[in-house]
Amino acid sequence: MQSFKELTEKFNHHFSNYIFNNKPASLYEPLNYFLASSGKRIRPVLCLMGNELFDDITNNAYHAAMAIEYFHNFSLIHDDIMDAASLRRGLETVHKKYGANTALLSGDVLLIYCYEHINKISNNYLPHILQLFNKTAREVCEGQQLDMDFEKEENVLLDDYINMISLKTSVLLAASLEMGAIIGGASEGNCKHLYEFGKNLGIAFQIQDDYLDAFGNPEKFGKDVGGDIRQNKKTFLLLYALATANNQQKQELQFLIKNNAENKVEKVLKIYKDCNVDAWANELKEKYFQIALKHLHDIAVVSVRKKPLLELAEFLIQRDY
Amino acid sequence: MQSFKELTEKFNHHFSNYIFNNKPASLYEPLNYFLASSGKRIRPVLCLMGNELFDDITNNAYHAAMAIEYFHNFSLIHDDIMDAASLRRGLETVHKKYGANTALLSGDVLLIYCYEHINKISNNYLPHILQLFNKTAREVCEGQQLDMDFEKEENVLLDDYINMISLKTSVLLAASLEMGAIIGGASEGNCKHLYEFGKNLGIAFQIQDDYLDAFGNPEKFGKDVGGDIRQNKKTFLLLYALATANNQQKQELQFLIKNNAENKVEKVLKIYKDCNVDAWANELKEKYFQIALKHLHDIAVVSVRKKPLLELAEFLIQRDY
Repeated sequence: MQSFKELTEKFNHHFSNYIFNNKPASLYEPLNYFLASSGKRIRPVLCLMGNELFDDITNNAYHAAMAIEYFHNFSLIHDDIMDAASLRRGLETVHKKYGANTALLSGDVLLIYCYEHINKISNNYLPHILQLFNKTAREVCEGQQLDMDFEKEENVLLDDYINMISLKTSVLLAASLEMGAIIGGASEGNCKHLYEFGKNLGIAFQIQDDYLDAFGNPEKFGKDVGGDIRQNKKTFLLLYALATANNQQKQELQFLIKNNAENKVEKVLKIYKDCNVDAWANELKEKYFQIALKHLHDIAVVSVRKKPLLELAEFLIQRDY
Repeated sequence: MQSFKELTEKFNHHFSNYIFNNKPASLYEPLNYFLASSGKRIRPVLCLMGNELFDDITNNAYHAAMAIEYFHNFSLIHDDIMDAASLRRGLETVHKKYGANTALLSGDVLLIYCYEHINKISNNYLPHILQLFNKTAREVCEGQQLDMDFEKEENVLLDDYINMISLKTSVLLAASLEMGAIIGGASEGNCKHLYEFGKNLGIAFQIQDDYLDAFGNPEKFGKDVGGDIRQNKKTFLLLYALATANNQQKQELQFLIKNNAENKVEKVLKIYKDCNVDAWANELKEKYFQIALKHLHDIAVVSVRKKPLLELAEFLIQRDY
């Protein structure tokens, strides 16, 4: 059994073999630019781990992993256009550097290339993988659309928000694991448990991400806190605060969102703390983390095989900030 | 053997069974809107015709035809964003009606749905169809990028322009036919001839389209002539005129392109005629049309089976304007 770190190195080596030399360069160069910026490659490595949970890793898992990583990058390129984002991983976004039209079209071609990699998968797995990939890809788009819709809405229910987060980010983590499991020959029951492990872990991780952005120790967190608050982003924390605050707190919160008041971050954080948002978020995160662990536990393979996934889950969901 | 018209009716009936009821409606409603606007459905019907050239039409051909029609519409939705076009088929474009972000994302999801239909194709054809579909989809994106690149370039060589047109429009026609042929059990040689028939017919059709926009009889052509000239679109005619005009004509042409002079259309047409652009375009069209017919002729099936394709080709490439 290989650790997340070991498999990341292997995947990165594999990934580095794929540089686009096609023409026109004006279409493919932006992809080389973007793909070279080092993402964490979590999703493709989850696919390899899903395979190794059940059997030795085969080339099929690498083909699926390539498709998954391309899909993730495709979605980032297009999301950055929609969000008019200037920076990603510390570098200029594709649309900022090459223009929106080329970013749109380069993204399209990257999505098509996902399917070139999928088509390398052995015929006996191909329809199943293709079906799961398509369903997941569709859901990620649905999540992005819901996210854009929610930004315009005053009241978003927590359940709807969790559904959006699940579609936008968790299903791809879940499907990455499951694709590996399918290739590893897992039973349908085991596949479903692994999928649910990934999905719930993804939700826990997103709650943690929202929490750290507000309450994290800047030194340990490694980025500026309060970014979500400054950008009026709808987060787990804001939704809960709006749902539980008393009238006065609610009015203040809505005033702070609509106006870029002085010390906005501090004032919003004060309301969050008064509403016990921090304790609630930790509980919610823990709830989803435990569901994830239960599903991992229920997978019918000897527990030593689960060790790398358990370690990764515990690394991702930290209890120390 | 069924005519283009008969198969169009059958395909339209099949197509009308697919209405998106998925959520969020904000993502899928734009697709229902766009797909309902009646395109000519040439490409999917070519797929059915490619199948029937060799054998009875099966459901596999309908699945491929759905993917092809979705892909064509996906490319139109995204092209309209890039071209900032307001109207398509007499209706508001998707990005104009629903905003650029939703148009982008709806287009993405439509591309993913192409692969849902492809995944319905029997396992014995699936990898081959997927491979041809991917290659073609990629080429269409490359053609669109080249088109955008060429708009910014002063001098575009005719061969490069033909390559761009071929990628942007002809390869999808060609691949539609070939996918049908693959499903019909055609040999590799027959598949290639049918592909080349479609590709060359597509180029001939595009030359005719450029010709009619400049020299067509408005009553027969059914749309305003001179649109390409008014929009300074690079066309076969303009490239040839720029390549063959004398210095004085060239200067005048470049002046007319850069300035929206009075009677611009008439003045450009005068230069076109002085340079014999019209006769040249007709010859070039005829050249590609004859190549197409030769490939149709060389397909090893009894000629009666080819009749619907021959009739369609002769209908598309008219000699009467």
